[in-house]
Amino acid sequence: MCGTDSPASINKSSLPSANGNDTGSPTCSPDHVLNLEQGDPAVFESYWRKMGDRCTMVISGSQLMSYISDFTNICWFMEPEFEEAVRRLHRVVGNAVVDDRYIVVGTGSTQLYQAALYALTSPGGPEPVSVVSAAPYYSSYPDETDYLCSRLYKWAGDAYEFDKNGTGSYIEVVNSPNNPDGTLREAVVKNRGDEGKLIHDLAYYWPQYTPIIRPADHDIMTFTFSKSTGHAGSRIGWAVVKDKEIARKMSKFIEMCTLGVSKDSQQRAAKIMGVLCGGYQNCKSANKSDDLFFEHTRQIMAERWERLRQVVERNQVFCLPKYPKQYCLFSGELIEPHPGFAWLEAKEEEEIDSQKVLRGSIKVQGRTGRRFGVAEKYVRISLLCNEEEFKEFLERLSTIKSMTSNGH
Amino acid sequence: MCGTDSPASINKSSLPSANGNDTGSPTCSPDHVLNLEQGDPAVFESYWRKMGDRCTMVISGSQLMSYISDFTNICWFMEPEFEEAVRRLHRVVGNAVVDDRYIVVGTGSTQLYQAALYALTSPGGPEPVSVVSAAPYYSSYPDETDYLCSRLYKWAGDAYEFDKNGTGSYIEVVNSPNNPDGTLREAVVKNRGDEGKLIHDLAYYWPQYTPIIRPADHDIMTFTFSKSTGHAGSRIGWAVVKDKEIARKMSKFIEMCTLGVSKDSQQRAAKIMGVLCGGYQNCKSANKSDDLFFEHTRQIMAERWERLRQVVERNQVFCLPKYPKQYCLFSGELIEPHPGFAWLEAKEEEEIDSQKVLRGSIKVQGRTGRRFGVAEKYVRISLLCNEEEFKEFLERLSTIKSMTSNGH
Repeated sequence: MCGTDSPASINKSSLPSANGNDTGSPTCSPDHVLNLEQGDPAVFESYWRKMGDRCTMVISGSQLMSYISDFTNICWFMEPEFEEAVRRLHRVVGNAVVDDRYIVVGTGSTQLYQAALYALTSPGGPEPVSVVSAAPYYSSYPDETDYLCSRLYKWAGDAYEFDKNGTGSYIEVVNSPNNPDGTLREAVVKNRGDEGKLIHDLAYYWPQYTPIIRPADHDIMTFTFSKSTGHAGSRIGWAVVKDKEIARKMSKFIEMCTLGVSKDSQQRAAKIMGVLCGGYQNCKSANKSDDLFFEHTRQIMAERWERLRQVVERNQVFCLPKYPKQYCLFSGELIEPHPGFAWLEAKEEEEIDSQKVLRGSIKVQGRTGRRFGVAEKYVRISLLCNEEEFKEFLERLSTIKSMTSNGH
Repeated sequence: MCGTDSPASINKSSLPSANGNDTGSPTCSPDHVLNLEQGDPAVFESYWRKMGDRCTMVISGSQLMSYISDFTNICWFMEPEFEEAVRRLHRVVGNAVVDDRYIVVGTGSTQLYQAALYALTSPGGPEPVSVVSAAPYYSSYPDETDYLCSRLYKWAGDAYEFDKNGTGSYIEVVNSPNNPDGTLREAVVKNRGDEGKLIHDLAYYWPQYTPIIRPADHDIMTFTFSKSTGHAGSRIGWAVVKDKEIARKMSKFIEMCTLGVSKDSQQRAAKIMGVLCGGYQNCKSANKSDDLFFEHTRQIMAERWERLRQVVERNQVFCLPKYPKQYCLFSGELIEPHPGFAWLEAKEEEEIDSQKVLRGSIKVQGRTGRRFGVAEKYVRISLLCNEEEFKEFLERLSTIKSMTSNGH
């Protein structure tokens, strides 16, 4: 097992969006493989372009040179401006309780997930703590848990399975809304007393994807700049943590792993979050405007889902999950979720490999359900691509009339 | 053992340079603890300030948003501009062979060290591979190796000891010039056939610290932006790697660990390296100028060492290593090394705890020899602090007349 199979490698045979400035023209000839396997958040770029130079970051050659940001903070490598911006953002959105909580910055939420595993375990236990998440679970959890073959913890698969048959100490990762299927989730393993610990991965708990049904208030919650505003290239994430000792251990992990987190990116994130929040504070009493980040991007996601559902319903080859409308505290409206991924399930056959069929018949690269711990009839398609790619995807998808006759 | 003792935590009781803009006035009252424990490279800041806006980085809100830099590169998250700048810098300095070598970017060389351990080991071995380095070794190697209690590798201490008594597969880390003692080094463990692998940590192999005696040409060499130009806050390092498969595994490690490396910082590093190299190309035939980075900073380090040796020789309490002059290919001169740390050895007694005495008698915080795998009579003091701190250090050091009578 340990680190040897199911590599999470990004498919290198398909090359759209292959550079940081993928604003325009991936080849959309029918021969070109449309790579919708990763959740690269290109959809948000047009919004930030519209903002002009309001978010422009300027750093002179002599700034931000020290390892240290603030030795009085448990997370001594966190820029104070970043911490302040994170707290302000959560207060504006209302998606997480931040009062009397510790903030820990990480090199993306990938690093914070691992920091949380480290903080929740101790050396010297009789065997590694089991790490579980309800299937379909985020496809990178298994590799991120096991690649160093730690004696502290090990990936143990589906939380439903563990709830039935598993024993011993465990950590359950609750990803809500869930990647790949967009559902709002709660912990699955029940009645284990002190044996269980929770990590809440709330990467997608933002108004463009989902109704904000309450301010989340869990022991360890992780968020990422990649999915909140779309700035994946900066590799910035943060955790909101209740317990001081856990925050200290997470910071210690990041110290040993990377000796801190890019200050350039922390400052840039602080600036961008500040502009985003400023928009809300300036427009508080005015009508919601298209200039506001979450309204603008929710509108885009809503339109994409409407267009996608039309195609899927018309050709009757796949099902998509149905999401109930819920009251969103942020918008004050009853709204439907619009997840960042389409979780497609083939209708026709139990045994079909949907990833393979899409790749073979319409040259669209998704990620197979197998990677998420479920059947191959499922495939995950990113809806966070740019508009040209999304349009091309719908055009190609609409040509599929049957999974079997199109399959290679 | 595993992760529980000798935490590498930065001492939090002493607070100079506590923010990123420590250009000026740490409290230099005698009661103030002077923290020279970390190698925070503040000494280089004045040079970059003098460069004005030539190194200023400007990033708009819509740039660098993608995870991906170049899917055709093994290290798909590396900005092409960064790779090009790294190759150019090594060609200008002549400190490493980069032709027909792979470059891998990391979140500081801390991450690349761990990536190299991952790349050089495989799951399923009978027991973890031993990781060794000749004492005195860099104090963070033990923790960085053991904190996740990996089954792939484990810290096994002093390479000299392993050479005598150790058995089985091993990885030797050769840190040259060595932190803490500034010596140029070669591998210590001999005649083991295929059992051994090497990592060369060349963080300090730059002209301000040491003569460049040859272009280094090893299987895996790691470097860092922190020590080359002094930009520690950006958390950027790179490896120069001979073997394609090793470069691929190192990139894979960084993918699983942090899903890439801050693009903001990669671009900033590229810009700063470009300005540095441009200086040399513009002044090629002119006399060496104080405007050139390595000449300027070597001058500062040389002066600091001269002042330091005067104080140390006058008060006869400590010894410092003597370094032979060697011919430097970069400067074309016979020059003496000027390491970034003073490795002080107490003359008086075998049993003395030099860190404790310095802290108690003159309120200077160094790092004990124990952390580097040797006796407590040794203490490491950073010489990379700003000028005010360095001056204060010398003044305080000159007041010590004896280790015992000053000790608490």
